[in-house]
Amino acid sequence: MIGPEVERLMKLLARVPGLGPRSARRAALALLKKRESLMLPLGEALAAAAAAVKRCGICGTLDTTDPCGVCADPARDGGALCVVEDVADLWAIERTGAFRGRYHVLGGTLSALDGRGPDQLNVSGLLARVRSGGIGEVILALNATVDGQTTAHYLQDRLAELQVKVSRLAHGVPVGGELDYLDDGTLTAALRARR
Amino acid sequence: MIGPEVERLMKLLARVPGLGPRSARRAALALLKKRESLMLPLGEALAAAAAAVKRCGICGTLDTTDPCGVCADPARDGGALCVVEDVADLWAIERTGAFRGRYHVLGGTLSALDGRGPDQLNVSGLLARVRSGGIGEVILALNATVDGQTTAHYLQDRLAELQVKVSRLAHGVPVGGELDYLDDGTLTAALRARR
Repeated sequence: MIGPEVERLMKLLARVPGLGPRSARRAALALLKKRESLMLPLGEALAAAAAAVKRCGICGTLDTTDPCGVCADPARDGGALCVVEDVADLWAIERTGAFRGRYHVLGGTLSALDGRGPDQLNVSGLLARVRSGGIGEVILALNATVDGQTTAHYLQDRLAELQVKVSRLAHGVPVGGELDYLDDGTLTAALRARR
Repeated sequence: MIGPEVERLMKLLARVPGLGPRSARRAALALLKKRESLMLPLGEALAAAAAAVKRCGICGTLDTTDPCGVCADPARDGGALCVVEDVADLWAIERTGAFRGRYHVLGGTLSALDGRGPDQLNVSGLLARVRSGGIGEVILALNATVDGQTTAHYLQDRLAELQVKVSRLAHGVPVGGELDYLDDGTLTAALRARR
């Protein structure tokens, strides 16, 4: 029906998160129709980004420089360290503009089910950064999932020896959220943390 | 937060059908994490497919050869010509394996709203193919939308002069479909066409 080049393109597109086999087919066709304006630029952008992006040796995020933009920025507050699971979480916090400290990317959570222990995460790097001094507060900005909270507990224990203030993100009603649609756990947490 | 290469990649990914700005961000990050296994191969596949695919000079579909695989296949029945709006429709019919004739891709439908007339579609090519002889039946496999059916009516009128049998896809209950969930129009059509 169509050549092996397009079959291969569809197979690879289907592995991109957000696209399945069906939408990959649709995407491939749309790309073929916009060859000059989208398909070729996208191919070049993939190669360019793949070549440019590296992992930051300090915090573990992905950026085009090493150290990354945040770690290299002298205007950022080196006394506050925000621990996140993933690069996506760092990006989400950066988009808010509400945090002016630095980050540490764990690269996942502890997970008994998936057999991920502290050695699979960037925990030793975190402890080394805190031990080297200058950090007054570690903010554990982990996801409010079971694995995320388990990891936060574990890190809190490990950080307790190091005389550093450890905080967590507040639970509560999402801004714009309706109480009626909120789960009981969140509503209970918001009530307890009322001010 | 992240270099211009990644910003550009996200912007282009967001223009791929099936991905929006949010899922483009997620896709970009996933690609960066699978640089060797997905990102670089995808970039190469895009370039390879863009270079290989051309439009068939006979039927107007996209394929890696011109004439396309279907037009060039001597085993296909040249007496039956299936008219479709788009390459995606041709692919859909080919996947069924139920049609062994040849195709003609219009490249869209007539649309008063979008100002698309017969000159914007590959209508003259269709009439020329039918006029050149050897075609016993033209199957109008257009979408069951207002524009699709308007286009089918128009083509039926134009083909009426050419002494060729013109047929359309049957309307009816989708296989596996439940009557209760079917719209009235389809159910009425299925009743009328009962056999």
